[in-house]
Amino acid sequence: MFRTHTLGDLNKTDVGKKVTLSGWINKRRDLGSMIFIDLRDRYGKTQLVLDPEVSSIAYEKAKDFKNEWVISITGEVVLREKVNPNIKTGEIEVVVEDTQVLSKAKTTPFSIFDDKTQTNEELRLKYRYLDIRREPLLEKLKIRHLAMQETRNFFSENGFLEVTTPSLCKSTPEGARDYLVPSRLFAGNFYALPQSPQIFKQLLMVGSIDKYFQIVTCFRDEDPRADRQPEFTQIDVEMSFDGKEKLFSLVEEHLKRVFRKCKNIDIKIPFKRMSHFESLEKYGTDKPDLRFEMEFHRIDDIAKKSTFAIFLDVLKTNGCIKAINVKGGVDLSRKKLDNFTAFVNPFGLKGLAFIKKTDNTLSSNITKFFKEDVLKELENKLDIQNGDLIIIAAEKEGIVNQALDHLRRKIASDRNLIKENVFKFLWVDDFPLFEFDEENNRLKAMHHPFTAPCTKDLDVLEKEPLKVRADAYDLVLNGYEIAGGSQRIYDSSLQAQIFKLLNLSDVEIRQKFGFFIDALKYGTPPHGGIAYGFDRLIMMLTNTDNIRDVIAFPKTLKGLDLMSEAPCEVSEDQLNDLNIKTKDFHPITW
Amino acid sequence: MFRTHTLGDLNKTDVGKKVTLSGWINKRRDLGSMIFIDLRDRYGKTQLVLDPEVSSIAYEKAKDFKNEWVISITGEVVLREKVNPNIKTGEIEVVVEDTQVLSKAKTTPFSIFDDKTQTNEELRLKYRYLDIRREPLLEKLKIRHLAMQETRNFFSENGFLEVTTPSLCKSTPEGARDYLVPSRLFAGNFYALPQSPQIFKQLLMVGSIDKYFQIVTCFRDEDPRADRQPEFTQIDVEMSFDGKEKLFSLVEEHLKRVFRKCKNIDIKIPFKRMSHFESLEKYGTDKPDLRFEMEFHRIDDIAKKSTFAIFLDVLKTNGCIKAINVKGGVDLSRKKLDNFTAFVNPFGLKGLAFIKKTDNTLSSNITKFFKEDVLKELENKLDIQNGDLIIIAAEKEGIVNQALDHLRRKIASDRNLIKENVFKFLWVDDFPLFEFDEENNRLKAMHHPFTAPCTKDLDVLEKEPLKVRADAYDLVLNGYEIAGGSQRIYDSSLQAQIFKLLNLSDVEIRQKFGFFIDALKYGTPPHGGIAYGFDRLIMMLTNTDNIRDVIAFPKTLKGLDLMSEAPCEVSEDQLNDLNIKTKDFHPITW
Repeated sequence: MFRTHTLGDLNKTDVGKKVTLSGWINKRRDLGSMIFIDLRDRYGKTQLVLDPEVSSIAYEKAKDFKNEWVISITGEVVLREKVNPNIKTGEIEVVVEDTQVLSKAKTTPFSIFDDKTQTNEELRLKYRYLDIRREPLLEKLKIRHLAMQETRNFFSENGFLEVTTPSLCKSTPEGARDYLVPSRLFAGNFYALPQSPQIFKQLLMVGSIDKYFQIVTCFRDEDPRADRQPEFTQIDVEMSFDGKEKLFSLVEEHLKRVFRKCKNIDIKIPFKRMSHFESLEKYGTDKPDLRFEMEFHRIDDIAKKSTFAIFLDVLKTNGCIKAINVKGGVDLSRKKLDNFTAFVNPFGLKGLAFIKKTDNTLSSNITKFFKEDVLKELENKLDIQNGDLIIIAAEKEGIVNQALDHLRRKIASDRNLIKENVFKFLWVDDFPLFEFDEENNRLKAMHHPFTAPCTKDLDVLEKEPLKVRADAYDLVLNGYEIAGGSQRIYDSSLQAQIFKLLNLSDVEIRQKFGFFIDALKYGTPPHGGIAYGFDRLIMMLTNTDNIRDVIAFPKTLKGLDLMSEAPCEVSEDQLNDLNIKTKDFHPITW
Repeated sequence: MFRTHTLGDLNKTDVGKKVTLSGWINKRRDLGSMIFIDLRDRYGKTQLVLDPEVSSIAYEKAKDFKNEWVISITGEVVLREKVNPNIKTGEIEVVVEDTQVLSKAKTTPFSIFDDKTQTNEELRLKYRYLDIRREPLLEKLKIRHLAMQETRNFFSENGFLEVTTPSLCKSTPEGARDYLVPSRLFAGNFYALPQSPQIFKQLLMVGSIDKYFQIVTCFRDEDPRADRQPEFTQIDVEMSFDGKEKLFSLVEEHLKRVFRKCKNIDIKIPFKRMSHFESLEKYGTDKPDLRFEMEFHRIDDIAKKSTFAIFLDVLKTNGCIKAINVKGGVDLSRKKLDNFTAFVNPFGLKGLAFIKKTDNTLSSNITKFFKEDVLKELENKLDIQNGDLIIIAAEKEGIVNQALDHLRRKIASDRNLIKENVFKFLWVDDFPLFEFDEENNRLKAMHHPFTAPCTKDLDVLEKEPLKVRADAYDLVLNGYEIAGGSQRIYDSSLQAQIFKLLNLSDVEIRQKFGFFIDALKYGTPPHGGIAYGFDRLIMMLTNTDNIRDVIAFPKTLKGLDLMSEAPCEVSEDQLNDLNIKTKDFHPITW
């Protein structure tokens, strides 16, 4: 037997007990007359004392011990002279009577006990098994575990059935690129790894499983982006006979429970709601960070009354003018403001106008273009107080929104307006059903092609499809989309009509989605659902903005596993079996 | 709102309530003066009454209703005249006041309400979403859900962490064939889908996660076999610092809980144990079905004393002679016995000898080769009673074992010796570490190359590797292997030695497993683990021998999804993106 207790177990009630402990040597201090060892496992650390007067054999052995060796000891629990209040076992130590080396260790490429020093991430990925020993990563994996269990228990308790959906699926590339898997038995045919179990969960609804959930791995072969992984985890939920309101409250209750259990934080429910239109209008984005203010104000009407040529030109060409109020921003130097202008430039915004208010006076190089009463109107609209800085952008609406959104977040970050452990949830709903895909000159589904149009907009579906809103919604947390869902089309002919509007030919529709359109014809209940980005949720729960921090064995930006060195070349035999040939070879330097 | 209750909810305490219900029309009986409808959802069925005197509009509408339409109704709960004791809601019915058609349905290709009639499985797979509505499949999916939740809760409560391991892995084909996934960013390189998370879970042990579990999808591109699916689900468990005994009792407690919750059956723990050697000796297989007797008896010593040339020849050529006692088997006709002989023929057994005992006398065409006292010895050894039939096989040991194993199971099935809802668990341990791979003329790992040899056999590892036993174990239930595990090698140099014995070159070892051997050098705790075939377990829990019955969307023997028609051809663009070409095309006829 290698242990009677873990290394987080013992406290002063155990004094006098004979125990067997095992773990990794975190640190060893040889004081000459005695050796102290901090032994570590995933539960904590326990101090060992090697005293030659208790066991000279154990003491002699311990002289050779190195960090990260795995040892097992037996000894007696005694009170510690100097209590360490920082660790759970800080009241006691164990006087070692016997010790055994279970496994020696080479010098690790980075320190395990010193987990505060920044270590090159590539090195940590290559030796992931060592990084997992360190508290920062270990704690995140524990929280991930906890969130998984709470999630499944929550949905199970609410009557949802977990159903395993397939990983080897049909390729229907709508949106992202599929990962493909060649079929060996049917040469030239391929499976695709699922981008989401969307179709399967809807078929479960057709199949009368009226409440479904799953925590499921999904795959997208997209181009590298910092917050993406080729494979990611999704909490997938679908339900019949209940609409958006029921789904919203379910998700709210679920997240309340997860935040309580994983972070000991009570989040307020129900969450705030905002239409997609309002969100763009006020924050220039469909995922606004509500931890800070600086809402946009559209000042077209006020600007119209000015004589400032730039504003007037923009308005004439259907642009818009929006302003934000940076409270207390008068302290920002000319240089800082010039930086802001440079910052928004890449988004297509040529300049910014600034107005400061000090001593009850607005000062700016543009105030001269405004009459007194119009300035007053501006002051009222933006609630400008002494000390405030107003930033104004004028351009095409898309450009203004994007530029001011980025600027707003930059200012919040620069000025430390973002408090820790504040969680601002927001439902954004009433998304447009379609967006226009300039590249392919066709309509594109904004959510996905199974999303139901809002009933009230159905009459303009054919004539003005871009005006149709979808019964779709995103859940936004602190500026990140953490879940997205919709009510689904449950009428077979409406589904076929949507595919046509998306410019799929009859042949394509039949080939890709024929079975699904057929399925809808056999009695389909009204249904809707949502998918949460689980990795993203864990990032929020663990205060990291690196997605690799919440995945045990993640891949790099380019999809490499630096530890096992995957992907890799495979044998000719393997390729022959699969009836494929490679056209090119790109060697990977590890 | 589409429902206030599900269709399994209402009983006589609800009488007088106004309710809204939704579901599928299971059956409709038009009595002329009234229409009765059984409305169905996954919770049950509720009888609706459409009475023209209550609502002529609803009654008129209902005349057109067809099976499987989805409707929503409001009405009042009333007591039923004739109680139906077979359903939960059998005491009441709902008098419909208003009704709404949510979705019409085409005539289904097979009946939903009549789920007893055998339906062609291909048709059921093509219309899987309809099959899921039927009780037999629905019930199995519910039990699968329940077993999943109980499993996760059990392991979580026992301190195990669920860790998500990757699906895009390195290809290290040892054993089964990998499914491959071409990398787009690195032409000519491939990921492999995991055959099991074996290496990752061991690395988690190196990473100090001393208790890990996961319910995880695994993939093997093997040739079609009735009880296989290209993707399958595994309960994966690994633990450090505890050995086999702890693991056995953990698995026993887990299964006890699962059987209690899913089947309301109390299974007896601890489970019986048997060495691999004993299992082959007594049952000719390493997965014996213990629901019935007919253990093998080796009668080499007795046969040696006979004058029967066939027996003596077999013994001379290192063969063996084994017998089974079929209790009450004297009723088997000559023809049946001839059938047995024909049945064992394909396994390489040329004949069988039969001895019957009636009226205290043994009768057989071979008794003449035995002296009286030798026959007596045989009677004692096999405990032969009046009415018993003895079947004797003589050949090389492998042939005798395989033939008698199959025969034993055939007889049990023919003679109805297998009782329903009997669950006979058995641990088989002390497997050989290696087996000899004739085809490639080299040693092969019997379990997998990470399995630890038994310490007591380490001294013959180099000289007589085939004699080395492994610290490996299988859990057998009713003749099926439902889990397999082992203690792992945690010494880097022993691991390298095993790879060498498996005839892997230094280059191969480095390329495939170098990172893993390295990992073991940084302080690895003693560890071991087990993996259960989850689909198989659910098959046992739901009394089916068809693996497709426990998977929501399974594939055919050849790996086809008949519903969505996967795999399929993909576009030139997709293949170009992946830098691959297909060499051949095998069209699939759906």
